[in-house]
Amino acid sequence: MSDRLADVCVVGGGFAGLMAARALTRAHKEVVVLEARDRLGGRVHTLSFEGAPLDLGGQWIGPTQDRIERFARTEGFDTFVTHGEGQHLYVSGNKTKRFAGTIPPLGPLALGWLGYGWFELDRLAKQVPLDAPWTAKRAREWDGQTLATFLDRHVRSGSARKMFRVAIETVFACDPEDVSLLHALFYIHAAGNLDMLLSTDKGAQRDRFITGAQPVAERLAENGGATIELDSPVRRIEQLRDGVRVSASRMTVRASRVIVAIPPTLAGRIDYDPVLPAARDQLTQRMPQGSVIKCLAVYSEPFWRREGLTGQSLSSDGPLHVTFDASPKSGSPGVLLGFLEGTSARKLADRSTEERRAIVIDNFARVFGARAKNPIHYVDRCWASEPFTRGCYAAYLPPGVWTSYGAALRTPIGRIHWAGTETATRWNGYIEGALQSGERAAAEVLAELA
Amino acid sequence: MSDRLADVCVVGGGFAGLMAARALTRAHKEVVVLEARDRLGGRVHTLSFEGAPLDLGGQWIGPTQDRIERFARTEGFDTFVTHGEGQHLYVSGNKTKRFAGTIPPLGPLALGWLGYGWFELDRLAKQVPLDAPWTAKRAREWDGQTLATFLDRHVRSGSARKMFRVAIETVFACDPEDVSLLHALFYIHAAGNLDMLLSTDKGAQRDRFITGAQPVAERLAENGGATIELDSPVRRIEQLRDGVRVSASRMTVRASRVIVAIPPTLAGRIDYDPVLPAARDQLTQRMPQGSVIKCLAVYSEPFWRREGLTGQSLSSDGPLHVTFDASPKSGSPGVLLGFLEGTSARKLADRSTEERRAIVIDNFARVFGARAKNPIHYVDRCWASEPFTRGCYAAYLPPGVWTSYGAALRTPIGRIHWAGTETATRWNGYIEGALQSGERAAAEVLAELA
Repeated sequence: MSDRLADVCVVGGGFAGLMAARALTRAHKEVVVLEARDRLGGRVHTLSFEGAPLDLGGQWIGPTQDRIERFARTEGFDTFVTHGEGQHLYVSGNKTKRFAGTIPPLGPLALGWLGYGWFELDRLAKQVPLDAPWTAKRAREWDGQTLATFLDRHVRSGSARKMFRVAIETVFACDPEDVSLLHALFYIHAAGNLDMLLSTDKGAQRDRFITGAQPVAERLAENGGATIELDSPVRRIEQLRDGVRVSASRMTVRASRVIVAIPPTLAGRIDYDPVLPAARDQLTQRMPQGSVIKCLAVYSEPFWRREGLTGQSLSSDGPLHVTFDASPKSGSPGVLLGFLEGTSARKLADRSTEERRAIVIDNFARVFGARAKNPIHYVDRCWASEPFTRGCYAAYLPPGVWTSYGAALRTPIGRIHWAGTETATRWNGYIEGALQSGERAAAEVLAELA
Repeated sequence: MSDRLADVCVVGGGFAGLMAARALTRAHKEVVVLEARDRLGGRVHTLSFEGAPLDLGGQWIGPTQDRIERFARTEGFDTFVTHGEGQHLYVSGNKTKRFAGTIPPLGPLALGWLGYGWFELDRLAKQVPLDAPWTAKRAREWDGQTLATFLDRHVRSGSARKMFRVAIETVFACDPEDVSLLHALFYIHAAGNLDMLLSTDKGAQRDRFITGAQPVAERLAENGGATIELDSPVRRIEQLRDGVRVSASRMTVRASRVIVAIPPTLAGRIDYDPVLPAARDQLTQRMPQGSVIKCLAVYSEPFWRREGLTGQSLSSDGPLHVTFDASPKSGSPGVLLGFLEGTSARKLADRSTEERRAIVIDNFARVFGARAKNPIHYVDRCWASEPFTRGCYAAYLPPGVWTSYGAALRTPIGRIHWAGTETATRWNGYIEGALQSGERAAAEVLAELA
């Protein structure tokens, strides 16, 4: 096997790795990107059906996500606003209600508690320093409890708590029982506030790429000029006296430094020589990926629009708790998007696509009526089953991890630097965070190479 | 590289893997055990200093640990009772108090809360079914909170809570903030009750092997008659139509079935083909190993005994929170054992042995006086730094894991079976649990091969 030579080797061809590679090639460094899959984009993957792009992974960008917005604009990737004309649906048992905006039509008491919990989370989130959440004044207290414990204590209405569960699933792809309150507060603060995370018309679900999202990642690669090697899962990273040797299945790259830009749990599976320090290894033992299955049903037209519906719905019944209109800009064909998240995703992850299809289509029909029963196409993606992702949207931190291991998250180890959206301080978990992390890791490397 | 042939391949030469191998060879199966290290025993490792055994890993057995007790007795491994003559020390700030038994000399109010919390934990633990903790009636509620949340709510005395912190560290090698209440209750029930876990004279710290513990593991291997291959870390497991191919660095074993008997987080790092289902992979993302550094200081004699002390001490000051007399049966030399656990271990894991030595010896001297300042020998073991363990005593489950992923813990996947103390239903986390798990996995395999 021949050794390839480069200044820097980047592990992972998602937005984080590609952004790092681009920043380095712009500074005239030779870069080899090793990507495990036969495609670029990582957690972003666009298929097409009869000419219409179908995003099976990340698809949205929104206000204050400046890096991705700027890159897309410069490179001529036009966006359009997620279909929002009409009313959303709120489904509870046999009842379906129409509503507008982010807040579902609950009773006044539940709405009061929903508002109070929302306000408290936003208020506490602001107290979490984004670059070092473990230094928050109340860090130990917040990191010692789950988000479920917070809701139990502060939201004294069952229906308001149910809505919070849905909101938390939608953001973290896990249940409130799984995640540290401190992590939830950090994540909210990293996005700005809860509304930025949850809102479609004013937040993270606002804009979509006309081409779908994956071509944007591909452009980032072309634009960067690094050498890209697909089908190259990295198994081993050796630190030598004067550089690193990164071994993938088909090739070995020798470089001065390496940037590892893959989910933390996968970074922890690489064989390192010398072995990594305890703090880093134990950190990656404690950063599980969320659980989400993204489900898309294609119809000859977006029939719900003619009934004055946006295609957005909310329900605590499930298994789908939220849906969106994912039709292309033209509106033809019509595409309904449903997310299976947290427990729903875990229950259905290891079923066949056919079984899931039946369950999901039945759920769409319960929300949008009989016309939803006969899609012309169905596709879904269980990200936890993907060996080179193992869960989406991102890693979440269970209780105790930020306060005990947070300092190990970005700290380079010798010649190894860490990128990936999980290492971002703004829009952690999003494409924007991936880009920020790539920039930051590239800057670290450039400072060392200078 | 030559393919070795066997009926069954066992990954891991700790007590679990060796017990499985022994049960299989007794049923006339050919077994190859692949062990990553250059020694057997896994989390049990005995060094010697001037003829005295020094256990750097597991060292105790206790009442109701029937499998290990029976094996040791049959094979002529004599045990002796952990030195307990005299009084224990309780250190708080500048004050040192002597006491006897398991309960430290707190004020009456703190003792009341300590007793109440203890009673409640034991009472709730009994409600957790050992083979399926997620089916407990209140499983979701208990699994949705940390043990710290339980203590906050139910133990309304600061000094009682501090003692619980020490007890929890001692058992789980993590902080109450890290662990699910449901997991804590399961673990208590798996041992019987809290007293069985914590007590020296009546519980899990009662008996020691005269030879140290590792020779017992080695005898299990000899006695079994399987082929043992050391220095053989397993990188890949392929499931073929008619068997498995298990690839280690130096060799490949073809067998009908494989038993993976290593910590779950390490089992998750093996490259499987076909890839494992989502539920199994996400489970091993969520089973971190605890954090403990075992520290031993050797003195020409156990000087504390002449002062009427057992060598056992308790303190919430730290960094050592508990100590023991770890002298050999003869009482010469004298050995003090101190544990750095949870946060203490995390802080000191990546320091040099010299730095840790200074800190630990200083701590021994604060508890046992100036004579502790000059040991003739010092040795410690940070288990989180060991690439083939990555943390001790065992894995613990953060909130949400038992209820979402518990069913994947022991379920075989095709021709792959799972052992290791983390899969045990009795004495989970202990040598006894490892033996139970090896027996159970061997029985599964025998049922398939029959």
